[in-house]
Amino acid sequence: MTYCVGMVLDKGLVLMSDTRTNSGVDNISIFRKMTHWTVPGERILSLMTAGNLATTQAVISRLEERTKAPGERQNSLLELPTMFQVAVEIGKLLRETVHATQSENGQNGKGRFTASIILAGQIAGMEPRLFMIYPEGNFIEASFDTPFFQIGETKYGRPILIRAYDRSMSFEDAVKLLMVSFDSTLKANLSVGLPLDLMVIERDNFEPLHMRRIDQTDPYFDAISSSWSEALRSAFHSLPDYSFQQDTDKATR
Amino acid sequence: MTYCVGMVLDKGLVLMSDTRTNSGVDNISIFRKMTHWTVPGERILSLMTAGNLATTQAVISRLEERTKAPGERQNSLLELPTMFQVAVEIGKLLRETVHATQSENGQNGKGRFTASIILAGQIAGMEPRLFMIYPEGNFIEASFDTPFFQIGETKYGRPILIRAYDRSMSFEDAVKLLMVSFDSTLKANLSVGLPLDLMVIERDNFEPLHMRRIDQTDPYFDAISSSWSEALRSAFHSLPDYSFQQDTDKATR
Repeated sequence: MTYCVGMVLDKGLVLMSDTRTNSGVDNISIFRKMTHWTVPGERILSLMTAGNLATTQAVISRLEERTKAPGERQNSLLELPTMFQVAVEIGKLLRETVHATQSENGQNGKGRFTASIILAGQIAGMEPRLFMIYPEGNFIEASFDTPFFQIGETKYGRPILIRAYDRSMSFEDAVKLLMVSFDSTLKANLSVGLPLDLMVIERDNFEPLHMRRIDQTDPYFDAISSSWSEALRSAFHSLPDYSFQQDTDKATR
Repeated sequence: MTYCVGMVLDKGLVLMSDTRTNSGVDNISIFRKMTHWTVPGERILSLMTAGNLATTQAVISRLEERTKAPGERQNSLLELPTMFQVAVEIGKLLRETVHATQSENGQNGKGRFTASIILAGQIAGMEPRLFMIYPEGNFIEASFDTPFFQIGETKYGRPILIRAYDRSMSFEDAVKLLMVSFDSTLKANLSVGLPLDLMVIERDNFEPLHMRRIDQTDPYFDAISSSWSEALRSAFHSLPDYSFQQDTDKATR
């Protein structure tokens, strides 16, 4: 499994991904699931991937090759004029890779080799944008109502995102929120694991403002992990108490 | 979908279930998923069901019939000597019902007609016990390390259960905890819905100590739902703040 989150803030984009991949529960490895490309002063593009590792690595390698091989540069992510066209191009490549692998293996329809991608980035003169690209190659874009996307094991970490996300929050608060969301997921699903990769992209700054790998020894993650348990318990105890008495009130009304 | 939780406390057993059933997203209904039987002073048995509604209703109806038809009373839940034997009998009936429906419909293996059951109860002279019964008819029992079971949509409501559960908690706190866990699930999955059914079974008291249906107008659930959002946000803000500076510290170390 995997857990990746991308969120849009007023100030820019914040991304976090785990690094655990597994083939069964008895074969786990660490692979980076976050990649980025920049053209200084002009564009920054970042991808996070979930799903079949062979598929996602093939997609990333092909994208990477295109940015380097001069003959194919017309489709290079570094030359396409808009984020929308970047998403179209990545979607096309993802669909082709998934279809090719599945048909070569005699599979039809929904198969084992699928993958999903979160694309985040900005091109100069345009807004920062965030997309979720499906294995079928189509995609959706984050909006005011749905300002973040999750891929992989999305459920455990979702309640806190829904409640604490705020478009105007600082980058520091967004990182804190992601750490809490990842901590809840790590505690519940063995197939999501440390280290985590973090990237902060400031609006109109076409380089990562902040990049970090968070591993087992990270003192901040450790502090969040232990104090969140405590904070949740206090939050729980601060709620109004239940009383069996309510029944009687109701019955006698 | 469905969400049901059963938990063992020092003081007894607490159960909560939702009531939404759906066949697609355009066909939803309300069905009670919690059933119980008592023999005053001698035993109390309570079941919660998730999965195919035709299957779970068939199982419950057959169990119900057996408690009434004198000829079949040797297998009646009201006569079996231990909770373990009750679990065996329900498991057998569940497996037979699932297998019969699937084979009549030409399905093999993992099918659409499966269901799971949480069984909770106590027989005089023995401990209160909690079981989770699988569609295959086998089952597991709650233990000191795993003192609660969830069936249905288990993920959204799990992080708070893991963190706030405490075997020695009061019934009132346990109900509060379940309300929070259900609130998180209701907010995230449309196929889990109000009203909720609640049952509290006190140790050595072979009647429900407390039973309640929690609907849209319930003032306590409403208070929990709104104050939990607030409490979570406060808990979040009480955590130590992230600083980009940590990087530099690390780099210069």
